[in-house]
Amino acid sequence: MSVPSNENAHGSNDLPEGVPTTAAGKREILFNAFDMNCVAHQSPGLWRHPEDRARDYNTLGYWTGLAQTLEQGLFDGLFIADVLGPYDVYGSSDEATLKAGTQVPVNDPMLVVPPMAAVTKNLTFGVTAGTAYEHPYPFARRLATLDHLTEGRVGWNVVTGYLPSAAINMGQEDQMEHDERYNHADEYLDVVYKLLEGSWEDDAVVNDKESGVFIDPSKVHRIEHEGTYFKTPGIAFTEPSPQRTPVIYQAGASTRGRAFAGKHAEAVFINSPTDDLIKGTTAKIRQALVESGRDPYDVRVMSMQTIVTGATDEEAHAKYEELTQYIDVEGGLVLMSGWMGINLAEFELDEPIGDVQSNAIQSAVETFKKASGDDSIEWTVRKLAEWCGVGGFGPVIVGSGATVARELTRIQDETDVDGFNLAYHITPGTFEDIVEFVVPELQQLGRYKTEYAEGTMRHKLFGRGDHLPQNHYGSSFALRNRAAV
Amino acid sequence: MSVPSNENAHGSNDLPEGVPTTAAGKREILFNAFDMNCVAHQSPGLWRHPEDRARDYNTLGYWTGLAQTLEQGLFDGLFIADVLGPYDVYGSSDEATLKAGTQVPVNDPMLVVPPMAAVTKNLTFGVTAGTAYEHPYPFARRLATLDHLTEGRVGWNVVTGYLPSAAINMGQEDQMEHDERYNHADEYLDVVYKLLEGSWEDDAVVNDKESGVFIDPSKVHRIEHEGTYFKTPGIAFTEPSPQRTPVIYQAGASTRGRAFAGKHAEAVFINSPTDDLIKGTTAKIRQALVESGRDPYDVRVMSMQTIVTGATDEEAHAKYEELTQYIDVEGGLVLMSGWMGINLAEFELDEPIGDVQSNAIQSAVETFKKASGDDSIEWTVRKLAEWCGVGGFGPVIVGSGATVARELTRIQDETDVDGFNLAYHITPGTFEDIVEFVVPELQQLGRYKTEYAEGTMRHKLFGRGDHLPQNHYGSSFALRNRAAV
Repeated sequence: MSVPSNENAHGSNDLPEGVPTTAAGKREILFNAFDMNCVAHQSPGLWRHPEDRARDYNTLGYWTGLAQTLEQGLFDGLFIADVLGPYDVYGSSDEATLKAGTQVPVNDPMLVVPPMAAVTKNLTFGVTAGTAYEHPYPFARRLATLDHLTEGRVGWNVVTGYLPSAAINMGQEDQMEHDERYNHADEYLDVVYKLLEGSWEDDAVVNDKESGVFIDPSKVHRIEHEGTYFKTPGIAFTEPSPQRTPVIYQAGASTRGRAFAGKHAEAVFINSPTDDLIKGTTAKIRQALVESGRDPYDVRVMSMQTIVTGATDEEAHAKYEELTQYIDVEGGLVLMSGWMGINLAEFELDEPIGDVQSNAIQSAVETFKKASGDDSIEWTVRKLAEWCGVGGFGPVIVGSGATVARELTRIQDETDVDGFNLAYHITPGTFEDIVEFVVPELQQLGRYKTEYAEGTMRHKLFGRGDHLPQNHYGSSFALRNRAAV
Repeated sequence: MSVPSNENAHGSNDLPEGVPTTAAGKREILFNAFDMNCVAHQSPGLWRHPEDRARDYNTLGYWTGLAQTLEQGLFDGLFIADVLGPYDVYGSSDEATLKAGTQVPVNDPMLVVPPMAAVTKNLTFGVTAGTAYEHPYPFARRLATLDHLTEGRVGWNVVTGYLPSAAINMGQEDQMEHDERYNHADEYLDVVYKLLEGSWEDDAVVNDKESGVFIDPSKVHRIEHEGTYFKTPGIAFTEPSPQRTPVIYQAGASTRGRAFAGKHAEAVFINSPTDDLIKGTTAKIRQALVESGRDPYDVRVMSMQTIVTGATDEEAHAKYEELTQYIDVEGGLVLMSGWMGINLAEFELDEPIGDVQSNAIQSAVETFKKASGDDSIEWTVRKLAEWCGVGGFGPVIVGSGATVARELTRIQDETDVDGFNLAYHITPGTFEDIVEFVVPELQQLGRYKTEYAEGTMRHKLFGRGDHLPQNHYGSSFALRNRAAV
């Protein structure tokens, strides 16, 4: 074991107020597993690896097994991404997307949560769902049902839209314009808050067998919502669940997206390949909270991260080399084209990027150049895809458990992130490796929990109760707060 | 054991073609358990019974325990009802509804299916979902996901609307007009069929690790749907699941509803209190299938039924008497008012019905009078509610397992139903009793399976494969059929 290089960087005395600490009094690193109900999530082509089990995404056993592995490693959560239509920027069609199975087909993410909850006690679940396609009235019921069934172990990753291909399949001409989408989403959340926070008083369910009264009708209130997009006058159709509003996740990186996060988010996923970008984004997010009257550490910032690990550094590097053999360049370009909004099929695969006339591509190259720390690499479109081929756009750490643990603590200390959203290269192998090799090393550094905190997801994350805190916008809809006004 | 009175009525030789038979060569009785994700489903007030566990509806343990009990008793399925808004005809408000907890709160029914599938191998799941509130594109994905996760053990109970209170909370002024609702639902099913049957060819997923091709894009087709209500041009976002289209359930009793059932339904739930009505409705449903070019026994007709049973007739009758002490008359009137569309709060509880000026009520009394076979009963509004207080509107059988088994076979032989949709009075006690006392007697009569059939829900029900049969309207959208044209 090497001595952790950062042991004095964040002693318990100089930690910012509100950050999670371990029993050792040091800043805690949080772990989410990042998955999607599909075959090729962030690492197209890796489904061909002999040990990859992503093909089993449509079976219960895949999900319950994964959940048990993660809970064994004291992971904080499993975060499930989602899209509802195929990527179709690359080649202006979905042909390459289908061929590579890149985020297609994708099954519904919510339905796999209850069986995982049934085989775990503490693992939490972040589920992606869009505000653009389902009315908030039935959606709030789904959320509340999940919160009941998981006993308060659920978060909702709010996305304001999916891909245009999804919008079109819902009969819309295209997605709403970007800022309007956020206005729509703001009102959507208002309806959800009103239903989950502002309809049923805490003691509305009296369950009195003597009097025969199950609910006291005077304690259930109509929400009388009438806005620009929604009209929902009646009562919520679910009784208060452990958290009422599930923990709100968000991932928007635009200015408007950050304002949305500042107002609503309790956890934010960021996806940047360099320390500088991670640090800058994290600071902006915390600042957005302050601008919404919240504390900077009222949000947990989780940074996308890929880890390739093994018993030794050599073993890890050999594993990485082996993984790269399965990279599907075209499958990767499908994702990159979608993310950048540029049809990368129009460029020669092996043409030096220096010759490509595209600001977005040049900017991506600048970023990757910095991330690689290697000026000698000749960047081509192929190289871009390969660079993201093992785990996606976020940084990649290759090394033994001790090496990875040191690097993660360094990143946290440099960037002020709360934890990592761990993409897989193969599943559940990536997570099994992290549980086996990295978690014990982080524990030894005093930077990772050695047992779960009790209670709901929100309580586990912030240690101060099950419900939205008083300084969160959503809590203004809570009846207990409205009564106090 | 008494000798079954019907042993010659349906010997294997005179059974209609297409009815399920047991290994003993006799007509098989199918069992569904009827439940809802709430506290008071069909028997308001019974939640106060000391042995009732309906209060645990919002826990995983309730559902997984129930599923295991049902599978132990070789039940064919669990059918989960749903509403999305409170009953509010009685007293023109939801006050009495809330007080009694009558079908409020109600959690989402789909989310409890995967954990039940995880603890069972053969039990099937019928889930209620409306066509009025969610776009068919994401809904088809939910259905396909359930069919994948359950390995083909799921059915969809199509309802064309819920209560007006639900429609209003979705921003609609009221529900669509009755016949238009069915037109809308017809198109909704077209979109679902096109997505689940007509987008992905059987061998579209090639999963070829050598070539790196996961999906053959030439075998995935855009559905190009453009109708009156929906516009969905793209591909389905899920790969073919074991059944593709889950088994279609339906419960519409109107003429338009029966035409809809004739076209789409593979199982129909009926809810009538007398043999004559059950027989008449069953015959009309089978006729509706014939009018849609199908065979009369291409549908399984399940009749609502309540059973109170025990080791002896005396014990069962004592149990029934005890159950009646927990009936909540007002909670029952909430349901009856909603079902009949009449505000029963406007009538004196103990006024003889003879004096009440309402055709619907007089007609209900006529029906119940017939069902009771007792002319001496003085019918009042209270008596109506009490009559439905243990298990709801369907007939009630009270007796030992042998008595119940004889009565069920008699009803089947008289009415031509395929099985029973068993409402509970207390849960899971009702089902535990049926498994313990009734199932063995039915088996002894040769009228109940002694082991499960293999395969998907559709295969278990009809014994001829996993997919919609060739003579079903929905199969016209199947690519294999379109290719053959």
